[in-house]
Amino acid sequence: MGQTRVWCLTRLCIAVDFCSPGKALCVRGAAGCLPHVQAAVAAARSAGVHIVWVVREHAADGGDAEVFRRHLFEGGGGYCVKDTPGCDLVAGLTCETADTRLVKTRFSAFMRTKLGEVLAAKGVTHLVVAGVQTPNCIRATAMDGLSLDYRVTVLEDATGSATPFVQEANLYDLRYAGCEVVSTHEWATGLLGGQLEGAQV
Amino acid sequence: MGQTRVWCLTRLCIAVDFCSPGKALCVRGAAGCLPHVQAAVAAARSAGVHIVWVVREHAADGGDAEVFRRHLFEGGGGYCVKDTPGCDLVAGLTCETADTRLVKTRFSAFMRTKLGEVLAAKGVTHLVVAGVQTPNCIRATAMDGLSLDYRVTVLEDATGSATPFVQEANLYDLRYAGCEVVSTHEWATGLLGGQLEGAQV
Repeated sequence: MGQTRVWCLTRLCIAVDFCSPGKALCVRGAAGCLPHVQAAVAAARSAGVHIVWVVREHAADGGDAEVFRRHLFEGGGGYCVKDTPGCDLVAGLTCETADTRLVKTRFSAFMRTKLGEVLAAKGVTHLVVAGVQTPNCIRATAMDGLSLDYRVTVLEDATGSATPFVQEANLYDLRYAGCEVVSTHEWATGLLGGQLEGAQV
Repeated sequence: MGQTRVWCLTRLCIAVDFCSPGKALCVRGAAGCLPHVQAAVAAARSAGVHIVWVVREHAADGGDAEVFRRHLFEGGGGYCVKDTPGCDLVAGLTCETADTRLVKTRFSAFMRTKLGEVLAAKGVTHLVVAGVQTPNCIRATAMDGLSLDYRVTVLEDATGSATPFVQEANLYDLRYAGCEVVSTHEWATGLLGGQLEGAQV
């Protein structure tokens, strides 16, 4: 402790196609986590924590999607197709000018993106992860964050899974692997109350 | 189907320090999966499938370990310290001349290793993953494999976790994320019986 902490809140896949009932890849637990995601964003803004929105965008033919998902794009289907409303952030969340917006096409927000460079340029040491869904994009990003020697916090109520079983099992593993897993309230209180020492970008 | 499949069996962290009771990072489910790992290796050798052993080796001071684990190396502790018996493959498993041996220092076998280049040079399309432990190294490698557009098979009985709950929850997620999850017998039978079409490296 006593070391300067520079935080970044990384927000994943909070797009219409993942969070709206009726969509092919809608995550059932997404809707429930959204108020907590909003609270995390508000706390981050108040504390001057940099926010990175990492969203999927795919070509209409799915040629840049994972090979095992490309069949979903046949016949004009697919998800998060570039320049369609399915890519938009869900209502209540906005990427502001001071934030960073990155496009990804794989689970981890670090894969084939500039996230590493963005964090390095800002001297970030602590990564806070929120969004959907926990077993895929959240977990892959958190594990890459650990492997790249960031301190990683996962917000247990600002992340969502298809079922409570999946959510709990993944939070258990992430805690065991080396992540800090706390509620948004707990994280925000510490951040805003000064219990979490250090500068924020 | 009908496409040529080139297989590679990637074997992770089957080292003394992860598989022997009494070691700091011993995985409780490791011992139970070892006979299946041996069976997978034997089947791969019979079918001419290339085998990649990906093992950890760390500096004695832990300076190349994940930052959240470096404290384990204080006072001469640590795990998989280079040139110590803790790095050795467990009894009954041998890296042969025709195999590839890679050293990793992070969860994923793809991170900071030449695994991608090895697979590309051999034209590998299908990755089979075995070893320990399922929520960390196995899962990170499998998810990276999917993201890099390999077809990924995880051997459910040739992988091990600390508890049956963790093992089952992770296999569930991996299946859901796009991996094939089968028993070693099922995979080997298909491979040796010709039901799995295509060439093997």
